[in-house]
Amino acid sequence: MALTLHEIEIARERISPHILQTPILRLNTLDKRLGCEVFAKLECMQITGSFKLRGALNKILSLTQAERKRGIVATSSGNHGKAIAYAAKMLGVKATVVLPYTAAKIKVDTIREWGAEIVQCDASERFECAERVCREQSATLVPPFNDETVMAGQGTAALEIMEQCPELSAIIVPASGGGLIGGIATAIKTVAPQVLVYGAEPAALPRYSASLKAGKPVPVEKKDTIADGLIAQIPGSICFPYVAAHTDAFAGVEEEYILKGMKLLLLEGKILCEPSSGIGIGAVLQGLLPVKRTDKVCFFISGGSVSLEQLRILEGIAL
Amino acid sequence: MALTLHEIEIARERISPHILQTPILRLNTLDKRLGCEVFAKLECMQITGSFKLRGALNKILSLTQAERKRGIVATSSGNHGKAIAYAAKMLGVKATVVLPYTAAKIKVDTIREWGAEIVQCDASERFECAERVCREQSATLVPPFNDETVMAGQGTAALEIMEQCPELSAIIVPASGGGLIGGIATAIKTVAPQVLVYGAEPAALPRYSASLKAGKPVPVEKKDTIADGLIAQIPGSICFPYVAAHTDAFAGVEEEYILKGMKLLLLEGKILCEPSSGIGIGAVLQGLLPVKRTDKVCFFISGGSVSLEQLRILEGIAL
Repeated sequence: MALTLHEIEIARERISPHILQTPILRLNTLDKRLGCEVFAKLECMQITGSFKLRGALNKILSLTQAERKRGIVATSSGNHGKAIAYAAKMLGVKATVVLPYTAAKIKVDTIREWGAEIVQCDASERFECAERVCREQSATLVPPFNDETVMAGQGTAALEIMEQCPELSAIIVPASGGGLIGGIATAIKTVAPQVLVYGAEPAALPRYSASLKAGKPVPVEKKDTIADGLIAQIPGSICFPYVAAHTDAFAGVEEEYILKGMKLLLLEGKILCEPSSGIGIGAVLQGLLPVKRTDKVCFFISGGSVSLEQLRILEGIAL
Repeated sequence: MALTLHEIEIARERISPHILQTPILRLNTLDKRLGCEVFAKLECMQITGSFKLRGALNKILSLTQAERKRGIVATSSGNHGKAIAYAAKMLGVKATVVLPYTAAKIKVDTIREWGAEIVQCDASERFECAERVCREQSATLVPPFNDETVMAGQGTAALEIMEQCPELSAIIVPASGGGLIGGIATAIKTVAPQVLVYGAEPAALPRYSASLKAGKPVPVEKKDTIADGLIAQIPGSICFPYVAAHTDAFAGVEEEYILKGMKLLLLEGKILCEPSSGIGIGAVLQGLLPVKRTDKVCFFISGGSVSLEQLRILEGIAL
């Protein structure tokens, strides 16, 4: 299938009984610092705490009854894993999540609590392990981003945004493999082509900036980032063409500015997000994206998976 | 003047060009824990970070030109002080805020940054000092709660709430001297008498529970509470009759549950509030207020004045 507005609209009909239409808030208190009229789409308030539920649900609901009966498999210890576990349990589908032995116990417990079976293996073997589980159970692998049905699910958030706030000038979206921004950008540029779509990725992992320059997905060196949801080293091969066709610019955001964005949203906006979701605000704070005083800019707050202990890192960050 | 719906409606016209209509959010993710349909009125997102701006603005805008010219005085280092400083500066009125020498430097600096002059004195003398400043400058004292014009300003939030969410069953309001809950309850019981209005106060300082029992304002023993915005030892003499006439019940919330409420709102609701504003959720978590699965309950989130360092106290609180 090709990802089109039609697919995203069908996805929306399919998943809307099972998800929340998350709010979009006008955050006036951030305008002065960011130099534009600030809006935030709060997917951190989505069930399971992130937008990932949209794609996971669209994928599972697109399976045949026979496929659903055989179950699904995923390999994420983060928001995708939680979404898979919750969606599968709600729909009565067996889910297996393959995790490395090194995964934090709290994450493993969370995935299990959301309702999935856990299989653990060495980190280096987790994709082979997931494929083996798929073969053994004749189950379907649900990839975190490199899949048009998953992308269509993520794109449903864009349809909500344009209904909630049709006068937007721009949307800034955190980017990793490209499932979210690919879905969002495809929807936006079809229903509201005048709206600019910007991607924000860690400066440490500039996979989209590099790949767009090269005209094809190229890998970047593995590096650490505080944005633990944005660690892809290469754009998804399926995502890349959509992102290349439908986005206006990318910003590579320094670690410090990712945290500044998260801290500003928390202390001035009163919204808790995970580090990966602070990156859009960080991009503007770092001066990387051209926003004007009268622009209505929507920051896509992709998730809220963060612990109190993790917030301590913000104490040393200057605003 | 007597506080009536009419006064609150006039207050709304007067202050609405200068304040934000804060959002009310449906927080589905909290329903299961709280046993009702959860709504939150987010005055933590108000300019200056709390509802206090409403009353301060209504008071200043009610002064004659001559009175405004002579300036205003207040004695709060907290949300009321910030609101006074901001409102006065915006309206071109001179504001003096009297603070004890013991006030935290960060609070003194904040009030000064918001635009007020600071006069410092011994804590025990601050009310006399404020009166002296008023006499010397022929200025007007703006009390934090015990004043019908201030109460009318706070009550404007109730008119917004009932327009934003007319189907509510109940509203739970943090209570200290009674300015906020007095204004809210007076408005609600006039425009929507079927809506229950509950007050939540620290169990350590049960001034309303005790006073309602006695039929008149009686003082309670001075005790510490983490809810630093709710420290009145006695109801305001002007507030009390309105609160007595228009509220349905009060809950005395244990310190631990105040913090549980704040933590639940932050981690599950993704909203940052100050401890005083967690008290309504705490009251329900502690089982003190009768809410049912199908009730639409609005928690009044009065303010968001909290530092990252203060959040550490939540780490040890079990949810």
